[in-house]
Amino acid sequence: MNHEGHGEHEERQKPAFSAVSTTFPNPPRIGDLPSGPRDAISDVGELRVGHLTLDQGAVQTGVTVVVPHGGDHFVAKVPAASVVLNGFGKSIGLIQVDELGVLETPITLSNTFAVGTLAQAQIRAALAAHAQIGRDWPTVSPLVFECNDGYLNDIRALAVTEAHYAEALANASADFAQGSVGAGRGMSAFELKGGIGSASRLAGGYTVGALVLANFGKLPMLTIAGRALGRELADRQETDGAPEQGSIIMLLATDAPLDARQLRRLALRAGAGLARSGSSFGHGSGDIALALSTAYTLPHLPSIPMPQIAMVHESRLDPLFTAAAEATEQAIVNALWHATAVSGRDGHHRSSLRDALQSLERKDQ
Amino acid sequence: MNHEGHGEHEERQKPAFSAVSTTFPNPPRIGDLPSGPRDAISDVGELRVGHLTLDQGAVQTGVTVVVPHGGDHFVAKVPAASVVLNGFGKSIGLIQVDELGVLETPITLSNTFAVGTLAQAQIRAALAAHAQIGRDWPTVSPLVFECNDGYLNDIRALAVTEAHYAEALANASADFAQGSVGAGRGMSAFELKGGIGSASRLAGGYTVGALVLANFGKLPMLTIAGRALGRELADRQETDGAPEQGSIIMLLATDAPLDARQLRRLALRAGAGLARSGSSFGHGSGDIALALSTAYTLPHLPSIPMPQIAMVHESRLDPLFTAAAEATEQAIVNALWHATAVSGRDGHHRSSLRDALQSLERKDQ
Amino acid sequence: MNHEGHGEHEERQKPAFSAVSTTFPNPPRIGDLPSGPRDAISDVGELRVGHLTLDQGAVQTGVTVVVPHGGDHFVAKVPAASVVLNGFGKSIGLIQVDELGVLETPITLSNTFAVGTLAQAQIRAALAAHAQIGRDWPTVSPLVFECNDGYLNDIRALAVTEAHYAEALANASADFAQGSVGAGRGMSAFELKGGIGSASRLAGGYTVGALVLANFGKLPMLTIAGRALGRELADRQETDGAPEQGSIIMLLATDAPLDARQLRRLALRAGAGLARSGSSFGHGSGDIALALSTAYTLPHLPSIPMPQIAMVHESRLDPLFTAAAEATEQAIVNALWHATAVSGRDGHHRSSLRDALQSLERKDQ
Amino acid sequence: MNHEGHGEHEERQKPAFSAVSTTFPNPPRIGDLPSGPRDAISDVGELRVGHLTLDQGAVQTGVTVVVPHGGDHFVAKVPAASVVLNGFGKSIGLIQVDELGVLETPITLSNTFAVGTLAQAQIRAALAAHAQIGRDWPTVSPLVFECNDGYLNDIRALAVTEAHYAEALANASADFAQGSVGAGRGMSAFELKGGIGSASRLAGGYTVGALVLANFGKLPMLTIAGRALGRELADRQETDGAPEQGSIIMLLATDAPLDARQLRRLALRAGAGLARSGSSFGHGSGDIALALSTAYTLPHLPSIPMPQIAMVHESRLDPLFTAAAEATEQAIVNALWHATAVSGRDGHHRSSLRDALQSLERKDQ
Repeated sequence: MNHEGHGEHEERQKPAFSAVSTTFPNPPRIGDLPSGPRDAISDVGELRVGHLTLDQGAVQTGVTVVVPHGGDHFVAKVPAASVVLNGFGKSIGLIQVDELGVLETPITLSNTFAVGTLAQAQIRAALAAHAQIGRDWPTVSPLVFECNDGYLNDIRALAVTEAHYAEALANASADFAQGSVGAGRGMSAFELKGGIGSASRLAGGYTVGALVLANFGKLPMLTIAGRALGRELADRQETDGAPEQGSIIMLLATDAPLDARQLRRLALRAGAGLARSGSSFGHGSGDIALALSTAYTLPHLPSIPMPQIAMVHESRLDPLFTAAAEATEQAIVNALWHATAVSGRDGHHRSSLRDALQSLERKDQ
Repeated sequence: MNHEGHGEHEERQKPAFSAVSTTFPNPPRIGDLPSGPRDAISDVGELRVGHLTLDQGAVQTGVTVVVPHGGDHFVAKVPAASVVLNGFGKSIGLIQVDELGVLETPITLSNTFAVGTLAQAQIRAALAAHAQIGRDWPTVSPLVFECNDGYLNDIRALAVTEAHYAEALANASADFAQGSVGAGRGMSAFELKGGIGSASRLAGGYTVGALVLANFGKLPMLTIAGRALGRELADRQETDGAPEQGSIIMLLATDAPLDARQLRRLALRAGAGLARSGSSFGHGSGDIALALSTAYTLPHLPSIPMPQIAMVHESRLDPLFTAAAEATEQAIVNALWHATAVSGRDGHHRSSLRDALQSLERKDQ
Repeated sequence: MNHEGHGEHEERQKPAFSAVSTTFPNPPRIGDLPSGPRDAISDVGELRVGHLTLDQGAVQTGVTVVVPHGGDHFVAKVPAASVVLNGFGKSIGLIQVDELGVLETPITLSNTFAVGTLAQAQIRAALAAHAQIGRDWPTVSPLVFECNDGYLNDIRALAVTEAHYAEALANASADFAQGSVGAGRGMSAFELKGGIGSASRLAGGYTVGALVLANFGKLPMLTIAGRALGRELADRQETDGAPEQGSIIMLLATDAPLDARQLRRLALRAGAGLARSGSSFGHGSGDIALALSTAYTLPHLPSIPMPQIAMVHESRLDPLFTAAAEATEQAIVNALWHATAVSGRDGHHRSSLRDALQSLERKDQ
Repeated sequence: MNHEGHGEHEERQKPAFSAVSTTFPNPPRIGDLPSGPRDAISDVGELRVGHLTLDQGAVQTGVTVVVPHGGDHFVAKVPAASVVLNGFGKSIGLIQVDELGVLETPITLSNTFAVGTLAQAQIRAALAAHAQIGRDWPTVSPLVFECNDGYLNDIRALAVTEAHYAEALANASADFAQGSVGAGRGMSAFELKGGIGSASRLAGGYTVGALVLANFGKLPMLTIAGRALGRELADRQETDGAPEQGSIIMLLATDAPLDARQLRRLALRAGAGLARSGSSFGHGSGDIALALSTAYTLPHLPSIPMPQIAMVHESRLDPLFTAAAEATEQAIVNALWHATAVSGRDGHHRSSLRDALQSLERKDQ
């Protein structure tokens, strides 16, 4: 186990948090911890992300798959834990994650009404890989998260099929797109275009990466790097007046050897990043965080020796907690920054954050 | 709200708990609280239960639906709460139940690999009933519980289809079969035939009903009304030596006006009944309880006034807790008692409890 | 039950969140919801707050008592629920609050090593009031929260006595001091002087009030109304380099008729306010929130009829959630704003926020 | 780490569970797992138990201390986790145990109104041992459990003092008394004399020990090894008609290397043993379980390397779960068996189980 990490990258970076401007090529920067080389969750271990995007008129949705390692997740289970900040959500799989402290499939994200279909796809994939599952071995626990993309997407069309899971999986790569792609295709955030965002932070000798599916918030809440941009924007444009029906899924990954209890602690810190983006964990929002470690796996078969692990000392978790909060907040900003405008069902349209900021700058001139 | 209840039925009945015998026409009786007229969960309010059974060679499985009231569950939501005693399970829907304190669909039970399919069926049914769902209204939260019936059933065949949900629902009745029916078709318990069992108890002026999907336990654990029958049986027959991979779903219903916190307390008491049947909440068992109240519903639309409710005083819950534990234990016994022997995939066979008891009696003679 | 509230006060106020300056007589304002008349938790119902302050050289500590109503809390119990965001804490009483959904004593705040003493004081007070407690009636559950004020206070001196509880209680008033008073006397926040802060917000026809005991955070984290002031200050002064050993207790009160489940949801939103002040819920911090409702009480004696309550419709909670987050963040700012500098044990000293801001302004000139 | 254990002791013992009789010198035996040499929690590692008993007329109470290892618990913290089955309780310390997964003081048991006093005693002891606590080091988290012994004991007299903690600690030994001693002095169970009971079971190559403070249950519930003795006894004597106001604290210890998540799972299985003794986790009962491992400790100081641990494979937990349930049930039986009759305040008296059984036997003759 490598405890040395990449402390050499951890020189303090200049915070650019005041520079919320489209004239900058990069999204505003959150906090002052350094990022990994990709500033993405794929900076952690072998973790990869794949998208399948459906962009067909009123159907604006998709599937995103997060693959923690390069092996078979059922036989080499991944330490994990979750926190439900607000449970207006229909995810499947968390009961077992929280009991056993592991996940045993890739993590799938999509729209609310695709959960059952994608759970079946994950089951079918595990059955194909292992003839013993459902026979001598226990069943497999699918893990599918969702947000409601029904503002842009004709979610009632149930357009996601089981085949889309394999397609998203086949696209998995350490280099992946953000914004209006995959599960993020139809998502809205702060009445702007939301979607997939990712970021990473280096701290305490380890990397913490975040990937969010951002689909929450009303415009006046929007806060970027502490600036209440949403209120400024809301003074200039109509908000849709509807109650928040969004959600956010926040996935954290770290190469630190944490156990499930520590991962639960880490997952909670995603909530700090979320709050700073303007959310008060709205009633109608499924705000769920899951954290996993890539530092070790746990064998399915008891005949394989359990790994000898020296966990991180509890008093050394603070840098990881700060990294989790910052990476989550940055991932939300990145989702907005990378999301391109999308038009969907019934003439519904979501502008991009960058378009909105340009209109604000024009006003300021 | 009727607080008077049916105290007149509550004369103490003679416990028959020592009478574990097939010469009796009825299952052994647990505890000394009286039962409702059906000794079933359908003694509570308008609650009904429907089965769809698949009995086709290696396919031995099915679907059971519990329908809390006669109306639309999405617009008239049912107070509910759950407890996960052991989370080796793949149920869907509990996150939202626990956050919001209500369920908004009928409750569906089936085999582990049917959860996704049945969730989709519940979504489709809600979409058909309400054009606003996924548009102006939020999405619907399906509620599907499962056990692994893979010993008897070819669970890898994924035989349950979405259509089976509607068929089970159409069969819903206050009078329903127990044992090797519906979701219980392929279930095993204590290496005997398990399945669906139900019971009710009257206490404190209210009714508490239980319905279980019993699929847990190794033979030596089996305890009926305190008698360690499993050890007696295990001395006479081979146990299969496999680790426990079962589960039990325990549903409680009451006509007492409890809020979600109180229902969570009630749900936990199902665990007391489960423990007395011999379970120590095995590692590989998804042991999950859910309790609901039929005393009132909560409106989906905020324009409809909230009901004025006087909850049960906390100090009056003890009789309900006792009833919950007894009804659950009785429902487990009833599942075994009513379950007929089933042969399934690969020559696997489960005898009925009554067959096993007869062999024990023959020995005793 | 009054559902009409004080909507007439809810005209949108001008946010003054950019005005972090000591030249203003008031603390910077968080969010844009209006406040109640006192901008304090005592805007809710009959709630009162009392302090007992110990300012004796190395002993810099005290006791603060929050009194939800004017009656006897044991016989008229207060609906309540808590959330532990980070459990590095030694509070007593939450187990019973969470099980029963009520509190039955005033809420007491003090330093970590005073919890046992103050619990005894609460027990003694309840015994004096009710000869039946510990006889025919159950025992009473004390409710004491704590933070570690050991940087300024000689916490090892165990200076708080049982008598201090009654003294704090006797001082309870709707008008109460904030800052370096009561339990806040020795507390530090962001390496500045912390302590007691309070605020209120009007939303959805109800009032939500917050009171915090702020004793958390390192200087670079400090964020006020979105501005990363701590980083600016940290560039100019030494930070003490020690790991965070602080905590924050966040009490919320509302006159909305919420049940315990809803109060738990409300309590969680305190975490959003906390995060926005710069906290990532540090490892060594006991970050605990409790929410209570003054809209009704629940009788100890089952012979007294339970109140008929129409709860707030779940979809109407969002304004209360926003209010909870804003009031908490404001209460943290107010704690810092009102806290005067304190010198304590071993020459330790904490400057006030206002002193720190003045130094920053001098630099800017 | 020794994974071999004492499998050689695990030959199946003859269950004596039908032999509930005072003519036997030993208590009825639960289950068929073998016990350790003492059939007590002190069969696990170096664990010791000490009592201080107060037997002074109306004062019938005491203190029991469980000492997990021979070293300093603050610097060598003990892996632990808890489960609250029913939270009508006033224990202190569980918030931090559950957050950090360790305990850092001995475990103290006493009456409800002694919790604060004993917490102060634990704090004072830690302060005496470590000059850094409350200075450079964090504060210490006391861990005190309680039951209400107010039926026999004049609990309002607040007879337990801080000095009693040290006295109980000084008495700690692997060989310790059970029944009406220490914290068990004034406790009632099933309207008989309750108190301290302990037991151990060997399973899966490890030892699981239990110690209970039994103070719960009404007579008709009493079930010993499956036999509903309480109903038989209740037919012959008055029950006191009062609602249950008892509680049970269930401590588990194991030498298996479990992490905190696994220990939480183990702790829950104490509930299975409790249920089999007749409890339905009554409303007024604080039913709390805590499990700890003696297989390793975690260093307070981050400068000390974390231990390299290979945890037990999850699929190997079932024997430990069974052992936990059996040891808990046995410990309850042992508490009753060893408890001698006690007369206390206001002429209140509790007979011993053995006296009650003799009266039953006389009737049978």
